[in-house]
Amino acid sequence: MGKCTVLRSLLHSGRLIRVMGAHNGISAKLVERNGFDAIWASSFEISASWGLPDASILTLTDFLATARAMNEVVGLPIIADCDSGFGDATIVEHMVRKYEAAGIAAVCIEDKPFPKRNSFAGEKHQKLESIPEFVTKVRAGCEAKGSSEFLFIARTEALIAGAGVDEALTRAHAYADAGADMVLVHAKSRTPKEVFEFARRWQRRTPVIAIPTTYYQTTADEFEGAGIQVVIYANHAMRSAVQAMNQTMARIYAAGSTMPVEKDIASIEDLFELQGMNAVRQVAQ
Amino acid sequence: MGKCTVLRSLLHSGRLIRVMGAHNGISAKLVERNGFDAIWASSFEISASWGLPDASILTLTDFLATARAMNEVVGLPIIADCDSGFGDATIVEHMVRKYEAAGIAAVCIEDKPFPKRNSFAGEKHQKLESIPEFVTKVRAGCEAKGSSEFLFIARTEALIAGAGVDEALTRAHAYADAGADMVLVHAKSRTPKEVFEFARRWQRRTPVIAIPTTYYQTTADEFEGAGIQVVIYANHAMRSAVQAMNQTMARIYAAGSTMPVEKDIASIEDLFELQGMNAVRQVAQ
Amino acid sequence: MGKCTVLRSLLHSGRLIRVMGAHNGISAKLVERNGFDAIWASSFEISASWGLPDASILTLTDFLATARAMNEVVGLPIIADCDSGFGDATIVEHMVRKYEAAGIAAVCIEDKPFPKRNSFAGEKHQKLESIPEFVTKVRAGCEAKGSSEFLFIARTEALIAGAGVDEALTRAHAYADAGADMVLVHAKSRTPKEVFEFARRWQRRTPVIAIPTTYYQTTADEFEGAGIQVVIYANHAMRSAVQAMNQTMARIYAAGSTMPVEKDIASIEDLFELQGMNAVRQVAQ
Amino acid sequence: MGKCTVLRSLLHSGRLIRVMGAHNGISAKLVERNGFDAIWASSFEISASWGLPDASILTLTDFLATARAMNEVVGLPIIADCDSGFGDATIVEHMVRKYEAAGIAAVCIEDKPFPKRNSFAGEKHQKLESIPEFVTKVRAGCEAKGSSEFLFIARTEALIAGAGVDEALTRAHAYADAGADMVLVHAKSRTPKEVFEFARRWQRRTPVIAIPTTYYQTTADEFEGAGIQVVIYANHAMRSAVQAMNQTMARIYAAGSTMPVEKDIASIEDLFELQGMNAVRQVAQ
Repeated sequence: MGKCTVLRSLLHSGRLIRVMGAHNGISAKLVERNGFDAIWASSFEISASWGLPDASILTLTDFLATARAMNEVVGLPIIADCDSGFGDATIVEHMVRKYEAAGIAAVCIEDKPFPKRNSFAGEKHQKLESIPEFVTKVRAGCEAKGSSEFLFIARTEALIAGAGVDEALTRAHAYADAGADMVLVHAKSRTPKEVFEFARRWQRRTPVIAIPTTYYQTTADEFEGAGIQVVIYANHAMRSAVQAMNQTMARIYAAGSTMPVEKDIASIEDLFELQGMNAVRQVAQ
Repeated sequence: MGKCTVLRSLLHSGRLIRVMGAHNGISAKLVERNGFDAIWASSFEISASWGLPDASILTLTDFLATARAMNEVVGLPIIADCDSGFGDATIVEHMVRKYEAAGIAAVCIEDKPFPKRNSFAGEKHQKLESIPEFVTKVRAGCEAKGSSEFLFIARTEALIAGAGVDEALTRAHAYADAGADMVLVHAKSRTPKEVFEFARRWQRRTPVIAIPTTYYQTTADEFEGAGIQVVIYANHAMRSAVQAMNQTMARIYAAGSTMPVEKDIASIEDLFELQGMNAVRQVAQ
Repeated sequence: MGKCTVLRSLLHSGRLIRVMGAHNGISAKLVERNGFDAIWASSFEISASWGLPDASILTLTDFLATARAMNEVVGLPIIADCDSGFGDATIVEHMVRKYEAAGIAAVCIEDKPFPKRNSFAGEKHQKLESIPEFVTKVRAGCEAKGSSEFLFIARTEALIAGAGVDEALTRAHAYADAGADMVLVHAKSRTPKEVFEFARRWQRRTPVIAIPTTYYQTTADEFEGAGIQVVIYANHAMRSAVQAMNQTMARIYAAGSTMPVEKDIASIEDLFELQGMNAVRQVAQ
Repeated sequence: MGKCTVLRSLLHSGRLIRVMGAHNGISAKLVERNGFDAIWASSFEISASWGLPDASILTLTDFLATARAMNEVVGLPIIADCDSGFGDATIVEHMVRKYEAAGIAAVCIEDKPFPKRNSFAGEKHQKLESIPEFVTKVRAGCEAKGSSEFLFIARTEALIAGAGVDEALTRAHAYADAGADMVLVHAKSRTPKEVFEFARRWQRRTPVIAIPTTYYQTTADEFEGAGIQVVIYANHAMRSAVQAMNQTMARIYAAGSTMPVEKDIASIEDLFELQGMNAVRQVAQ
């Protein structure tokens, strides 16, 4: 069973699907090890991992290579965050073919023009693309699918741009009509109020995805109750890695040796296990 | 002043040069932020970041792309861990040209045959390359340098292979005679005894580099006193990142939300600062 | 039907399968347009296209990226020339997984050590790998196949190394016993005598592939009669491109304009057609 | 002397600089062998080489990798065709840093929005970007230069879009005011009339570049007389390669052997010479 089919089956399970963001092979492996359902190849995390702004500086080529490398070392399905589709409808068409050929389970594009700005970069940076333009992209992307199992997700940034729930619903309906298999409604408020209103009025036409970065107090039960099928914890892997690396380096620098940090970090053997070194050691040379 | 020249100046400073391992742009930026002198583009960390064994599975192309991406976002010089040179002398020749063209300050190759195994994978996996074969590589690499400022480091795995200090010295002398600008003597024991004996008998012919992964209690002062010019903390960034991501994911999974981890991880704004998002926000659109 | 299955069906057709070498998307498209059965992603052509020696200078990463890019723009199956497997059995294992994941129909490795030299670089450069070592690689590669449809081809360079037909047969039998789906017997003589003797004594245990670079007078009928199932015209695309580009540039340089060459080269519209520009033009903007 | 400086010296030579388009290492090597002054890393040729439309389907990453690979095997300076700059001013800024770090001598961007369409794809596909928007890109690109020797070329598509010589001049002046080191005025008519009028009224403020794809009867003397400093033969390498490969394949297919084409194509030894195989053969193994 292909990974697209695995992801579709999860969506039919009736329970909340929990997706964890990652940015490279090892963070993807840790998502798998910790029991999550799928992996979000986060463009914020991936951009950050390169030390570059989340502003379409990395290209389709870079994001695809990263998603492919992640996909090759895990069994879980990958949902690729494809920003605003890297350009126009013709580019989205090629994008879908390439991600599907790479074995990625789903792609997600958002209704902002290329180049995009991170959703938390401030409201004045969140211009929405017109509905007809984005619908053209969604249609082109859906028509480019080689298999009907592959998932195309349309994400609306209407709430991020401060345009309100009505606008978010108008847009999501247009995108679902154009063929989107799921809709993602992103938000920036401290409560899930708008997202829950969206879900209530959406009435399960397609599955709905939420990214509770700012309304993180909301529990899994509350999401289930509100009719949200999928939540994505989109950036916490990178945020924890940065915190840990920064502190570790500061302590090593201050001490003039790594002695103080040794007990707080993974061992070489832990890493060998994660990266598959033990399998290599067992092969007769 | 080019980065090769910066690294050479550091070596003439008389003080211990402290180099921190990294595996991507953001870990490289953190090395810089924390005050270290240079960055080790660690093949162990980079392999681990892909979730792949440290066994020459990643290629010259992959390692070079990573080192280049790191180099483009920091001001510090990068020392690239080039395993056993990715093949024979002809390949080492091309390797030197490519790394130098990418603006990397130094490359380091070790005297094990291709494909190599991680130095801590067990002594039976640590076959040494013959001296004449490795000398041919060192000579080819040094002759391929476009500028005499670029640094070529020869690393001996004699102590890793259990061959003793005499063998390490014989090898290091041969490599320095063949043109190596520095020698790295790797070791796996819990004390710096062998490495210090090597340094005493080496008598500062070229600078000596140590990687105190196993003898981590040794202080900076002790290295300076022993005549070691450079220490590399080669794998702690990745080990701390893995520990943190694993724990963060476990806590999110258990809680059904990210609430418990929010206070322990870097903020979105911290990441924006690190990845240069604020500069993007200031550009008029 | 996947491309592996297409290639397997061709092998059961009973007629001679004709495979043409290519080195990028457009040469692959021309192979398809001209009616051949499959495409050989030639490491000689690909290395030459980069202006680099055919001596394992390009890496698995580079060759795979090229094969993938070719595969994405044609419907024909691709047979990837994977030199000597880019390293040891562990690397061959990863190689098979990566090529299969990329949708390549078949991989082929040859029984020379890594790094390899081009088969026509002179007999003294053609050291054979020992049978046990190469068998280990073949077995590792075959066991790494995700689907039994994917094809693993073992190529013997025994005739290239001057070791004779008996040695070629001994090796090919060992490789078939280790799981190879097909054998390729390369040769450098001006006549097909040795290759035909090999095929006669092989008795169709697995299909046999020939590369008639030096014995080019041999006709398709003669190959069929001799029991060869597949021929590869391995390097003529690149050789014709180089000849044409060189002459075209010389004429432009001499004339001080492109006027003399205009009638002898493809038109911009021809290229638009080949590269799919017309489809882009039809999309409403 | 760096390649930027070489290119600047050529511009001060007083004679017409002749630049030939190429798309990979070997075509770049042939440009060098045939005596041209510099190499145009043509996005049309490179897109075509992948078998993909010239419509911003390939990314900055892909074009840069190709330009870098070309640059590493030749001594001539490379002028990189960077389409419309791959996005907005922030992206152009990163683009300049990356190309300069790769040792490319010059970049050229054109005043059409991203994604662009090939200039010969029909006038209705040639929307111009507004002057203020493109000026912002030019300024950002010029400010991102690390060395003042690196060249930033602004290309106007005013004549391609049918907007006339006055518009071309208005635009070119604005771009030169914003810091462009050279201007390129592209055209699609059968005569050089418009381009020559542009050059006459431009009065050598910065060097002017022409691409005589459609007005190919114009001689080098005529360009010199008209005050054009640089001509680019932008697509003839690829057009000759496609013609030759297509005919060669057709003949091989028809004949059932390569015999008829052998005398018309480069020999294996010719390729060995071009790709540097002989140097590899001389290295003792």
